[in-house]
Amino acid sequence: MASVDVPVALLGYGTVGAAVNRMLAEGGDEIERATGHRLRVVKALVRDPDKERDFPTGEGVLTPDFTSILEDTSIVLVAEVMGGLEPTGGYVLDLLRAGKPVVSANKQLLARRSAELFAAASGAGVQLRFEASVCAAIPVIKVLRESLVATNVHRVLGIVNGTTNFILTRMESGAAYEDALAEAQRLGYAEADPAEDVNGADAAAKMAILATVAFGSRVLVDDVAYEGIESLRPEHIEAARSLGAVVRLVGTATLLDDAVDVRVGPALVALEHPLASVVGAFNAVMLQGDAIRELMLEGPGAGGIETASAVVADLVSVLGTTGTGFLQGDASWRTLEKLPPGDLPAAYYVRIEVADRPGALAHVAERFADEGVSIARLTQHLVNGSAALDVVTHTAPSGKLEAALDAIAALPEVRGRPDALRLVVERGV
Amino acid sequence: MASVDVPVALLGYGTVGAAVNRMLAEGGDEIERATGHRLRVVKALVRDPDKERDFPTGEGVLTPDFTSILEDTSIVLVAEVMGGLEPTGGYVLDLLRAGKPVVSANKQLLARRSAELFAAASGAGVQLRFEASVCAAIPVIKVLRESLVATNVHRVLGIVNGTTNFILTRMESGAAYEDALAEAQRLGYAEADPAEDVNGADAAAKMAILATVAFGSRVLVDDVAYEGIESLRPEHIEAARSLGAVVRLVGTATLLDDAVDVRVGPALVALEHPLASVVGAFNAVMLQGDAIRELMLEGPGAGGIETASAVVADLVSVLGTTGTGFLQGDASWRTLEKLPPGDLPAAYYVRIEVADRPGALAHVAERFADEGVSIARLTQHLVNGSAALDVVTHTAPSGKLEAALDAIAALPEVRGRPDALRLVVERGV
Repeated sequence: MASVDVPVALLGYGTVGAAVNRMLAEGGDEIERATGHRLRVVKALVRDPDKERDFPTGEGVLTPDFTSILEDTSIVLVAEVMGGLEPTGGYVLDLLRAGKPVVSANKQLLARRSAELFAAASGAGVQLRFEASVCAAIPVIKVLRESLVATNVHRVLGIVNGTTNFILTRMESGAAYEDALAEAQRLGYAEADPAEDVNGADAAAKMAILATVAFGSRVLVDDVAYEGIESLRPEHIEAARSLGAVVRLVGTATLLDDAVDVRVGPALVALEHPLASVVGAFNAVMLQGDAIRELMLEGPGAGGIETASAVVADLVSVLGTTGTGFLQGDASWRTLEKLPPGDLPAAYYVRIEVADRPGALAHVAERFADEGVSIARLTQHLVNGSAALDVVTHTAPSGKLEAALDAIAALPEVRGRPDALRLVVERGV
Repeated sequence: MASVDVPVALLGYGTVGAAVNRMLAEGGDEIERATGHRLRVVKALVRDPDKERDFPTGEGVLTPDFTSILEDTSIVLVAEVMGGLEPTGGYVLDLLRAGKPVVSANKQLLARRSAELFAAASGAGVQLRFEASVCAAIPVIKVLRESLVATNVHRVLGIVNGTTNFILTRMESGAAYEDALAEAQRLGYAEADPAEDVNGADAAAKMAILATVAFGSRVLVDDVAYEGIESLRPEHIEAARSLGAVVRLVGTATLLDDAVDVRVGPALVALEHPLASVVGAFNAVMLQGDAIRELMLEGPGAGGIETASAVVADLVSVLGTTGTGFLQGDASWRTLEKLPPGDLPAAYYVRIEVADRPGALAHVAERFADEGVSIARLTQHLVNGSAALDVVTHTAPSGKLEAALDAIAALPEVRGRPDALRLVVERGV
């Protein structure tokens, strides 16, 4: 089959952009073998074309002028690797509307504006791919959209933030939170400002994208309830250990009776659950569905080359499917209700600090019973005249659990509102 | 986009075939949303059209006449779910040569005749897809061919036989080999004749297919050295435990200096390695490569619906890529040397039964040293007047290890040839 030359443009030429250009150049033979096409970066949008770059481009490739890309009819494929919401979002919309397929690595853009972007792509009959926006080299978007197209996926569980997973793994080995965070920063896993990692916002954006694809309905980051790991204490890690579990920041997207619930928060993951073995800065996503039972993908969830590898895979996949009508049916995506936030059933671990006074335990137990939350296991620890109760509940709607915690917090012998962490124990098998 | 009607034929209508038909019917809306096409089974080749079936087809769909499928020009897509080598192989070749893309779930056919099949597909400019031939619903073929097309994958590690993994997991909990096998048969994991599972032949066929795709070079099952789990004893499980490891039947495909080595055998997998957490009848495949570092996919490796899910995904993917030149470049696949069998470097666990006589340990150690195999750890156990040596080696070419074992077996104080199990400890990260 004769090779077809495919001029490609990049928006952005930082670490990821340069790595994409390098992979297209050095992997050109493999790509041509797979697709019959040879991809060549002909333009790359940058603010300063004169700045020195990793893997420099040829003469005249770098340009500060977006219009020169938009209006170049020879360019049939664009990868957006510049990040940010504006002007990026406008550029991507313009490109899609002009009939150019776009591959994006931009998590925030997808998590905030996917509805608009998909509609533009669908309207122009071109593809929008975004594998690199979630978990870098882990091909979870492709698997969901292409391998599981006829499988009813009803649950996605994910460890989708490497920084927090690294910190939690280090805390398991006895490190203090602050030291583990500093180490993550030193190793380049965490940003100088790690707020979005540790408060769960980064994971929430990724879960919004995964839910959108898994359930075929648009979920935006604002639909995701999230909580981070800042308030975790060594006692939580210790309690997890005594229960045969580890603490992980877990995102869950659940489809229940045609309603969607997406949330992120620290959870106790049973040691025999596959997610418990995800250590360090790795990410993992578990998909549960009818025909597949349970499928887990694990790998590096960040990194310049890892992200570039996902961008290149998307570029190749666009080429491999152009003109076939594949992944262009956005207009027919379904609209799903949001599950009322208190309705999601889950089992919980709850830690309650109480004064060591007769009747405290009975009062706590009554409050759970009043809300219909049944207790699977209760342990009392005495610490210097006060006591801590470790409670494991059976599955109950999260609203009932919250109501019980409110009532317990109002008891005179209880100190502060108890902490609750979901349990991840059940497998899809 | 207007829906396109796609008439599909099945070769075979057993458990998998009926499940494919059901998924195409019940998942029709999802498939149409993703592809703009609606797939409809119009013919299914069976020996006896009058036999009662799960999910019965419409009138006139079942036929014993292959020619009626081959010559029906309206049929543009065929799924082979009948199994066996003949007449199946001839049918698939005829269909490909007639310009019909084929999706096959047939591991033995692919592992034995892939070179011929790929050449026929390439010659006719149609696709041959075979996700379901390896690890059922785990989409490892798609990920290798499409997501990792520009990534140099140099190693594939796999637990690709659920029966043996189930048996080994049960043995870890104290079950005897025979009881664990009987349980696997009772649960439907093992065939009535489980020979190909427990002797490693089934895993060898799957590893041949994975190596073929991962390295872009044809590897046939005859190129794979394999060993099963029949000769494993509780002592091996026990020794693994004392070394912080578990025993798994591991397939490895390695690309080293442009030469390929593919083998299957029992191995000691360190507990902190992700493959150690693969329990029961599950399968997992780990891909190691330049850009992805290490990517693991885990899920159910067998089952009728799971296999059907992979067949349907392939059918959808053929539709999504038809006419684009994607995955049709078979003619340009590279030819790679076979790595000489003794050249693959690995670390080993070796168990040596010796008479408890002074000097035995020294003699054994000398034989290792003579072959340049260095010892990382050695433990001697005394059992009723005889002794067992547990030796862990550093990495050495497997030929050197074998030569050392031959020399050790020839020592007068050694009883029988020692057992050697590879160690799986290193990660790609």
